[in-house]
Amino acid sequence: MNAADLGLPVAVPSTALFTDRYELTMLQAALRAGTADRRSVFEVFTRRLPEGRRYGVVGGTGRVLDAIENFRFDADVLAFLAEQGIVDEPTRAWLADYRFRGDVWGYPEGEVYFPGSPIMRVEGTFAEAVLLETVILSILNHDSAVAAAASRMSVAAGGRPLIEMGARRTHELAAVAAARAAYVGGFATTSDLAAGFRYNIPTVGTSAHAFTLLHDSERDAFTAQVDSLGSGTTLLVDTFDVTEAVRMAVDIAGPGLGAVRIDSGDLLLLAHRVRQQLDDLGAVKTKIVVTSDLDEYAIASLAAAPVDAYGVGTQLVTGSGHPTCSMVYKLVARADDGGADAPLRPVAKKSMGGKTSIGGRKWAARRLDASGIAEAEVVGTGPVPEVLADRQLLVELVRGGEVVAREPLDAARDRHAAARAGLPMSATQLSRGEAVLPTEYLTHDV
Amino acid sequence: MNAADLGLPVAVPSTALFTDRYELTMLQAALRAGTADRRSVFEVFTRRLPEGRRYGVVGGTGRVLDAIENFRFDADVLAFLAEQGIVDEPTRAWLADYRFRGDVWGYPEGEVYFPGSPIMRVEGTFAEAVLLETVILSILNHDSAVAAAASRMSVAAGGRPLIEMGARRTHELAAVAAARAAYVGGFATTSDLAAGFRYNIPTVGTSAHAFTLLHDSERDAFTAQVDSLGSGTTLLVDTFDVTEAVRMAVDIAGPGLGAVRIDSGDLLLLAHRVRQQLDDLGAVKTKIVVTSDLDEYAIASLAAAPVDAYGVGTQLVTGSGHPTCSMVYKLVARADDGGADAPLRPVAKKSMGGKTSIGGRKWAARRLDASGIAEAEVVGTGPVPEVLADRQLLVELVRGGEVVAREPLDAARDRHAAARAGLPMSATQLSRGEAVLPTEYLTHDV
Repeated sequence: MNAADLGLPVAVPSTALFTDRYELTMLQAALRAGTADRRSVFEVFTRRLPEGRRYGVVGGTGRVLDAIENFRFDADVLAFLAEQGIVDEPTRAWLADYRFRGDVWGYPEGEVYFPGSPIMRVEGTFAEAVLLETVILSILNHDSAVAAAASRMSVAAGGRPLIEMGARRTHELAAVAAARAAYVGGFATTSDLAAGFRYNIPTVGTSAHAFTLLHDSERDAFTAQVDSLGSGTTLLVDTFDVTEAVRMAVDIAGPGLGAVRIDSGDLLLLAHRVRQQLDDLGAVKTKIVVTSDLDEYAIASLAAAPVDAYGVGTQLVTGSGHPTCSMVYKLVARADDGGADAPLRPVAKKSMGGKTSIGGRKWAARRLDASGIAEAEVVGTGPVPEVLADRQLLVELVRGGEVVAREPLDAARDRHAAARAGLPMSATQLSRGEAVLPTEYLTHDV
Repeated sequence: MNAADLGLPVAVPSTALFTDRYELTMLQAALRAGTADRRSVFEVFTRRLPEGRRYGVVGGTGRVLDAIENFRFDADVLAFLAEQGIVDEPTRAWLADYRFRGDVWGYPEGEVYFPGSPIMRVEGTFAEAVLLETVILSILNHDSAVAAAASRMSVAAGGRPLIEMGARRTHELAAVAAARAAYVGGFATTSDLAAGFRYNIPTVGTSAHAFTLLHDSERDAFTAQVDSLGSGTTLLVDTFDVTEAVRMAVDIAGPGLGAVRIDSGDLLLLAHRVRQQLDDLGAVKTKIVVTSDLDEYAIASLAAAPVDAYGVGTQLVTGSGHPTCSMVYKLVARADDGGADAPLRPVAKKSMGGKTSIGGRKWAARRLDASGIAEAEVVGTGPVPEVLADRQLLVELVRGGEVVAREPLDAARDRHAAARAGLPMSATQLSRGEAVLPTEYLTHDV
């Protein structure tokens, strides 16, 4: 396998080490105790949404499927486990043959979720399913946090395009996943070339203050940029004096200038002033792009301004105040014996300090009111009521270890827009509130 | 090159795509304008610390050195740039030969910093230095945020060891970098196997509630764990009833039981009660590990409790409220012509909306008071005052493209402890405050 085959720089040959040590030591103990092959059901869910948020957005499902497929223990990794004395030889032998052969169901990517929603369900032997905990949670907790922030920003932006430009504000590979999650949440483009390379997300770019400062004058800089990139380029106009820069920009590029970018100052005021100036100069189609520590509230505050696109960085990649979700991966049912046909028994930790889990393998459905708008997230165990049969939220993702639900990223993006549109209107208020749907439980024995 | 040579899963063969598109289009325009080879100085700094924080911690320097070394445009990447029409053929030809050949100086990893501290200085042609902006900022902004949170937690923990266990709460590769940064900031160990594999950070693990629930009884689970992992293991005692579990744990493992972990409930109360119980059972050396959404404040609140180690996840990997720093990479000086000997001229964007930069290539020194405690961060251009000559903070990291400052991670960890110890006492108050050192500027022409 060479680097090109790996699709690097984003993919990795194995995801097996993105794992907490205790997953492997639990495996060793279970193998020795003879309990490792008990059929087990793990579920991913959150106990709450981030404070004030009205819905969550499932992000990262596609990346989870990649991670499960690539979860292998190669010779280097096994040697590391031996050297460090992390697990014993029988366990390493078991790991050498490891491939996940179980089943995964889950909310499809882009779907919205609520407290208690069984976002993903992993079913197999305890041994094969417990190992996936850490990497599944890493991906879903990170990507869903970014997707949720992106969704709110997308609502705030109305139909105006959003540019993801937060790569410099987060880990270099988290940035690639963030660009992907932002796209699912409604962003149009990214500045991150690795995200374009890996996920075919359209990339865009403008120019930095350094480019202007490199040249002997702003005029020289603009001329250099237009000469090389054409008049359709975006010129950065706030290095010195915005009014003077806009005048010069149109003078150099002509009225066909693609766009100007404003990265500092009172964006509301400047956008109005620059629009007027551009129109007066005949550059009526030249767009205005604003950037500068925007979040969903700042975007909303510019709704009445003549802004054509928003570039968002820090607040997007850090989840706009909520950089992670609180998803957990809990054993909810398991068999008393090994074998694929042993009956499952619901299990749950005793409640203490609010960490309650509900035992049993769950289904979930979104109940609609008479007008077709969602009115409740119904989570249940046992038989599904007939009225909810066609509103089931979990779909099959992996069957017997084979991924069966690959889809283009646009499918997740479209799904998110549709799911959000099906929520009550108050879902998209930016103000703090409760989850817009109540979660109702219909629990029986599994 | 095969996967093993790459040191995967963490390293990548090229970091060149962890780059915003505009770096490449600026390059193209500068190449065409004949300005690309002007000698340029870029500096990384922050305009402020996160609100309430008294010092920052430089994290990620070693990773930046790796990223610079591996910043290459291979055939796949060049083909992508061509297909997408991102840059023209002459620019791609230039990129095909790219290797950074300039110089980098910076605060060594683990050093503390303040607003305006020139944390890193990259000097070379505009072309070779501008390309590194995105990846350098990604690494420093992420890793420094985690290192700063780790440092505060380390202070709060006193001498008690801290375990990093946040992998599941952040992007799977950000988690590896976070474990590294946490170690620099004072953490002792990590749960993340990839961090152990890549950076030799000691790994530890306990057990999850799922392991208990897998078995027919808590007794069966504890027996399985002790049988396999020995009595030195850490048993998780809060799945059902803590008192009963502690009694059973000592009954099964004997008084030599390594540790018990408490993951929910009133940790202060439980720690006291469990310590008393363990002592009464003769397990006087059995340790108590607590976990459960800890941050520096929760850790501090347990200072008087009989706790032996803290496991920290979410709040560590998300920077305890500040998941990124606000570091920027600014052109501060450049030559009027190409050539290595052309004189440098300071440059800066005009201030608007608080985005001020100070032009000129900078030095930095930490001035001490009569008792040897730091009293100011002095940042200057031009000649260094003689009294500060031996207090210079920037060290040479890359000379003519060659990394000259590799060091073991423990060096950065030790440096951080020493740097923090040299600050005024109020630096380590957890309460919100101002930067503990003022930044003084001594600026002349470069």
